[in-house]
Amino acid sequence: MTIHKLLIANRGEIAVRIIRAARELGLATVQVYSKADKDSLAVRLADEGVDIGSPQASKSYLNRDAILVAAKITGADAIHPGYGFLAENAEFAAAVEAAGLIFVGPTAQSIRLMGDKVAAREAAAAAGVPTVPGSRGRLESPEAAFALVKTTGFPVMIKAAAGGGGRGIRIARSADEFHHLMPQAQAEALAAFGDGGLYVEKLIEGARHIEVQVLGDGQDVIHCFERECSLQRRRQKVWEEAPSTSLTPAIREKLCSSAVALAKAVHYRGAGTLEYLYDDRSHEFYFLEMNTRIQVEHPVTEMVTGIDLVREMIRIAGGERLRIRQDQVRVNGHSIEVRINAEDPAKGFAPNPGTVTALSVPGGNGVRFDSMLYAGYTVPPFYDSLLGKLIVHDEDRASAIRRLDRALGELNVEGLATTKPLHQALVRDPDVQAGRFHTAWLEPWLASHTAGLAAAEAALAVPTAPAPSTAK
Amino acid sequence: MTIHKLLIANRGEIAVRIIRAARELGLATVQVYSKADKDSLAVRLADEGVDIGSPQASKSYLNRDAILVAAKITGADAIHPGYGFLAENAEFAAAVEAAGLIFVGPTAQSIRLMGDKVAAREAAAAAGVPTVPGSRGRLESPEAAFALVKTTGFPVMIKAAAGGGGRGIRIARSADEFHHLMPQAQAEALAAFGDGGLYVEKLIEGARHIEVQVLGDGQDVIHCFERECSLQRRRQKVWEEAPSTSLTPAIREKLCSSAVALAKAVHYRGAGTLEYLYDDRSHEFYFLEMNTRIQVEHPVTEMVTGIDLVREMIRIAGGERLRIRQDQVRVNGHSIEVRINAEDPAKGFAPNPGTVTALSVPGGNGVRFDSMLYAGYTVPPFYDSLLGKLIVHDEDRASAIRRLDRALGELNVEGLATTKPLHQALVRDPDVQAGRFHTAWLEPWLASHTAGLAAAEAALAVPTAPAPSTAK
Repeated sequence: MTIHKLLIANRGEIAVRIIRAARELGLATVQVYSKADKDSLAVRLADEGVDIGSPQASKSYLNRDAILVAAKITGADAIHPGYGFLAENAEFAAAVEAAGLIFVGPTAQSIRLMGDKVAAREAAAAAGVPTVPGSRGRLESPEAAFALVKTTGFPVMIKAAAGGGGRGIRIARSADEFHHLMPQAQAEALAAFGDGGLYVEKLIEGARHIEVQVLGDGQDVIHCFERECSLQRRRQKVWEEAPSTSLTPAIREKLCSSAVALAKAVHYRGAGTLEYLYDDRSHEFYFLEMNTRIQVEHPVTEMVTGIDLVREMIRIAGGERLRIRQDQVRVNGHSIEVRINAEDPAKGFAPNPGTVTALSVPGGNGVRFDSMLYAGYTVPPFYDSLLGKLIVHDEDRASAIRRLDRALGELNVEGLATTKPLHQALVRDPDVQAGRFHTAWLEPWLASHTAGLAAAEAALAVPTAPAPSTAK
Repeated sequence: MTIHKLLIANRGEIAVRIIRAARELGLATVQVYSKADKDSLAVRLADEGVDIGSPQASKSYLNRDAILVAAKITGADAIHPGYGFLAENAEFAAAVEAAGLIFVGPTAQSIRLMGDKVAAREAAAAAGVPTVPGSRGRLESPEAAFALVKTTGFPVMIKAAAGGGGRGIRIARSADEFHHLMPQAQAEALAAFGDGGLYVEKLIEGARHIEVQVLGDGQDVIHCFERECSLQRRRQKVWEEAPSTSLTPAIREKLCSSAVALAKAVHYRGAGTLEYLYDDRSHEFYFLEMNTRIQVEHPVTEMVTGIDLVREMIRIAGGERLRIRQDQVRVNGHSIEVRINAEDPAKGFAPNPGTVTALSVPGGNGVRFDSMLYAGYTVPPFYDSLLGKLIVHDEDRASAIRRLDRALGELNVEGLATTKPLHQALVRDPDVQAGRFHTAWLEPWLASHTAGLAAAEAALAVPTAPAPSTAK
């Protein structure tokens, strides 16, 4: 291992997660922080902290120069970018390496290739991985786009080539809508990403979101099987699990092999995720994009495979070869993660920063809570609303669901509204229990349940964490 | 499952553990409590609570009639005794069944047989399980005892037939000591247990404590491999792990098979543990006794096998057959548990009840904290000092040790001195790291380290949970 001191260029629960992995590897840790995060758990846990600027991300967590200076000051020899912020910024990865430091992630070239959604689709097609029917490259003209769309049929998605995470996507259900939306999409892509490049894909309705975790060392690549993340609100995942209930063993093998083929084709290094749409009626899967970083939902894979993904990506960054052979990766039981956000599901998921006045975290067998919270912590209003992730593992999916219900009942975050009541309602929903959902399932469910979530919260509290009824 | 509502006839962390398992099985829960425990976490988590008496255990947790009345009042149909208190009291098990309720544990007959250490040794010998050289039954006279001791050689242990947990044991290293101690031991056994019966065993010095977890349904029995619990202070375990570092695969197979043979011979039902001494120089093992209940250290077995032992014992009590075949039980990785007690290791382990003014519990991958603690909880002075158990699981022992070190650094119990600094010192000890220890290792280690533990606590705090050194 050539790394001795690791700088974490991120915040929140993923910074805590990385510090834990680094400490277990015997590495010293440096946590950079904005002025809004000086009292964060990550800063408390790290060996050293460096103030890198103002609360706005552009002045701190996106400030490449400040982060590189912090690494120099503290003698850090590697930088872990986490997810979001600079994690998929090829220029940052290149700047880290140019400064003589190790970037814990893939090469700048891999990030750049996969960050261009059009190039990624082309790489997939070249590796024999199916992609959603649509343009093979950037659209050269509105006319070419329309000619293509006539072959795929409606509905179609118009996507920004430089986008990601659901940003810059529009859906056209008719030729009229298509002609109307194309110029808008182009103008917005240019404004948002400095790149007006677009591409078009057939919208596969009623499909599931399934993604494959891979680990590569630049030469070999293994997969760690799949996660299903079909429960999404506004294209943000709210509930993730492994394995997927909807794959047959044969499709699973085909899907995971395709992910390895594509990652090998680009000599992938580190932890990455290949996202797919899966149509469980036709049993067809379609590559969407590759995320060249650790993902929020990585723990469900850790729980079922026993592989510590963050540890392995640090080891690989430190120059080690993959230590795990494909035939050693096995899935044991079932794991579910739910995102505990500082949002009030009874009020349209309004962000809800504030101070945690009291905190009880769930414990016991098969329960993991990866979080940035502590009692007395004030959640700043400047960043995304993820407070923590409640992860359960059990021998099968039905047991994992009951364990999740039990653990949610033990979680108590006072002082803030959180998404806990949403998950308490989901965990008891017959469709969720049966695994009957797809990426468009949650939004209409929310529309018919949001009004009831406040009442449900009160009702659900009774069986899970009651005041004792005392018989003397 | 014939159980619908489970009464927990215990307190502390094991009561919380049982409530969690019951809730995951969909059972309602009744927590009985003494007046000292009305604000306990178990009472908070259970569906119902019943006050059964005064703080003294004899008036509450040992008050069989009050517990049976509580079950009747609440309509509970089963009672889980946990460990300690009435867990190995055959008369209580019989009274529960006589009242038409289910006792979550073995039959009264099994408890009685294994509770008589002489009868247990005889059963072991009959099943072909080696026992420590010594008396085959109760000693009929001091003369017979001395004749026997001349064949085994010194040192020998004089044990009360009705004892357990290290109580009523004396060591004689010469004939003079033996003649001096025998009458004392007899008088004390009579006073302590109402039974002056004694037996004598050769003292195997430098041996390890290894125990085998079994699960039976009254017909079939499986083992869940072994735990090593050699780190003991005054015969109380302080650090437990699975698997043992000292067994060869062949010895492991022989040891575990012997445990299954004995448990099968007594038609064992429920979770049980067969304790052995193991001499890693001669590779001989010797059966000591069987504990006919769930044990404090059961989580390390759960972590490496993935079997939820408390869930399985409830299922079996509810009339189910064993659901796990022996060939399905596999060990994955390594697990270590340390006991967090309300004792000050820098002051001779003085009990240290009080109020928890602030609490931070460790989290992240492979970390489990089974505890009775919450912020603001006042630890009552009436019961044993166990506050919780910190359990880690990782891919191998070296990784588990680093994970334990990391997790101990995150644990913060303010307002009370705990055994955390002891574990922080142990986890960094070269002998502990190498697995070089036996049951007599810890006490001399403590004698030479206790003075330094307070200083070590301060020193150890630096790398594990420092205040950030802030570079601006």
